[in-house]
Amino acid sequence: MRIHNKQYTTIWLTADDELQIIDQTKLPAHFEIVSLKTNEDVCRAISSMQVRGAGLIGVTAGYGVYLIAKNFSKQKIWKEYMQEECHKLLNTRPTAKNLSYALERQAHIWQNNAPDEALPKLREEALKLAAEDIDFCRLIGEHGKKLIEEIAQKKNGQPVNILTHCNAGWLAFTDYGSALSPVYTAFNAGIPVHVYVDETRPRNQGASLTAFELAEHNVPHTLIADNAGGHLMQHRKVDIVIVGADRVTRNGDVANKIGTYLKALSAKDNSIPFYVALPSSTFDFSLYDGVKEIEIEERNAHETEYVTGYYYDENGQKQVREVRICPEKTKGLNYAFDVTPHTLITGLITERGIMEANEKAILTLYPEAEKYINEIKQ
Amino acid sequence: MRIHNKQYTTIWLTADDELQIIDQTKLPAHFEIVSLKTNEDVCRAISSMQVRGAGLIGVTAGYGVYLIAKNFSKQKIWKEYMQEECHKLLNTRPTAKNLSYALERQAHIWQNNAPDEALPKLREEALKLAAEDIDFCRLIGEHGKKLIEEIAQKKNGQPVNILTHCNAGWLAFTDYGSALSPVYTAFNAGIPVHVYVDETRPRNQGASLTAFELAEHNVPHTLIADNAGGHLMQHRKVDIVIVGADRVTRNGDVANKIGTYLKALSAKDNSIPFYVALPSSTFDFSLYDGVKEIEIEERNAHETEYVTGYYYDENGQKQVREVRICPEKTKGLNYAFDVTPHTLITGLITERGIMEANEKAILTLYPEAEKYINEIKQ
Repeated sequence: MRIHNKQYTTIWLTADDELQIIDQTKLPAHFEIVSLKTNEDVCRAISSMQVRGAGLIGVTAGYGVYLIAKNFSKQKIWKEYMQEECHKLLNTRPTAKNLSYALERQAHIWQNNAPDEALPKLREEALKLAAEDIDFCRLIGEHGKKLIEEIAQKKNGQPVNILTHCNAGWLAFTDYGSALSPVYTAFNAGIPVHVYVDETRPRNQGASLTAFELAEHNVPHTLIADNAGGHLMQHRKVDIVIVGADRVTRNGDVANKIGTYLKALSAKDNSIPFYVALPSSTFDFSLYDGVKEIEIEERNAHETEYVTGYYYDENGQKQVREVRICPEKTKGLNYAFDVTPHTLITGLITERGIMEANEKAILTLYPEAEKYINEIKQ
Repeated sequence: MRIHNKQYTTIWLTADDELQIIDQTKLPAHFEIVSLKTNEDVCRAISSMQVRGAGLIGVTAGYGVYLIAKNFSKQKIWKEYMQEECHKLLNTRPTAKNLSYALERQAHIWQNNAPDEALPKLREEALKLAAEDIDFCRLIGEHGKKLIEEIAQKKNGQPVNILTHCNAGWLAFTDYGSALSPVYTAFNAGIPVHVYVDETRPRNQGASLTAFELAEHNVPHTLIADNAGGHLMQHRKVDIVIVGADRVTRNGDVANKIGTYLKALSAKDNSIPFYVALPSSTFDFSLYDGVKEIEIEERNAHETEYVTGYYYDENGQKQVREVRICPEKTKGLNYAFDVTPHTLITGLITERGIMEANEKAILTLYPEAEKYINEIKQ
């Protein structure tokens, strides 16, 4: 990923072993780098959404466990301390499967090693989680690119119109992204693409993050209200929908940013292919029926009552301001995700390839999950 | 309608025969009354959405024609002048059927009367259009109330949860409203109701106008992002959807605020009743297939790139501010309406009663339209 023509990842360890992130709450107005020194910093970064997106939450949690261990003091009892601090991390965001996935990977280490042995191993595992995230996203791009290429071949040089919801680009992962990785891969290969970017209220990750990414990469794109996708699909102005995911059941039901379900209904009604891109760390094989079983995070109503943006003051200085959009007496409600039933999904794009959204197809590409599923069924 | 506990309509002639409106672009931050003296004032009020909503646009246009005639100077040729000025009015907003309906009603008068005879008749007709608008909305409330009452009876005192999109309340008409008229009628009759208010980006008529109306009337309500309706319906948190309309074909296809179609898809998918409330002036019997035949207004992209809201400055003064939500390089696209096919609509609520959304049912309640339809078919 490139920002202001410089190569970045969304999270990294400096030469001095300091954990740094891009503060995504400041985008697109300001590009700021923040250091995280304690587990409190990491928890705050996740819950305040300085880092967000399924993949990046997981990778941040991986580094977070390393930070926790680094800050261990011998006055405390190792496993109790680790358990308690990791539990705080787990509670920062309930929907993203990648969070618990990363914590489980790290738990194997701190549960089976004394503090001094654990520390370098936790660091290594955190780096490995980040490297896997990058690698998986790159592969998602390779597989998904083929879908875009096929459409392009039928369009005789006209751009392929891709609609996406929320941000599942490189800002949501360590690099590349999930839903946007096929777009970048196609664009870099010279295939003409154009992206309709859903604003994605209430937090506007589409307007502020997806648009920022695409603009930095010079990918043609257009910002639309979340309300507009249905009309565009009805009039064949969208060729394919690609979104990300926060949690996917073994049956292919997808929890993703609130509003995804509405776009999937519209895609189905207009026979437009609807794909979900995810690294396999987003699968939750313990769940089957997403609508019934996935817990949906309810965030602060404040986010629905206010909008944050920027303006230029009388001195030409860029200022960020939050404005209230409803009367004082009005209260909001803020579910962060919804579940798109697998029947509305054309296919899933993962690092292993493209598959239909059902248990049989998923287990064909992920046969190792079968053992785990049989265990939990008992 | 009541604002700050005082009785209002959205448009009126003062004792001095001055045309006044509530400036809806200032709500909910400020309540301001504006005088319209010329056709330019009226055209600007409609196109800048100081007045908006199907019914109110029509009634404003009715008064507008009276103002045009009032400002006639004998240097000009009466019919040419009227034709030219009315054409400006017609071009302010393309989607609302009520606009052309009011202009046609007034055209009968100025085409068949000399200036001096026409003037009092145009005034009378403008007042009649306003009175009909009020009367029709009141009747819509009576009919629609029965739907809410039936649900209430099954809920044993639990509030009936109504979802609405955009603003089709009294601010969109002269009084009462269309979609919200059943809500007010039910509420006033002591039936427990709760309204989910879609924010309605890009212009936020839900957050700023519907929430304002409901708050002034003390109706329990909750602001939600446009993305949230699907999730709420999936989890049975919505009992009925009622929206307004800007243009309805004789087959029952409904042009309404962008995003209506997505909510209708979700209601259908979850077997939740989806009703459209409209006075008969919103019917366009000349059209059959709404998706193919209704021209959809494309408004300035600026509205999608910015959000307007208010905040309190360091002196505690309320300030209105527009903020940009996307990068400078990003451009928006802004279709104002979409079309909901009649197959997704449970029924239409008009001043004459409730009917299914199809040609046969509509013509049963509006048999006088049949002659007109036969004429245009020839």
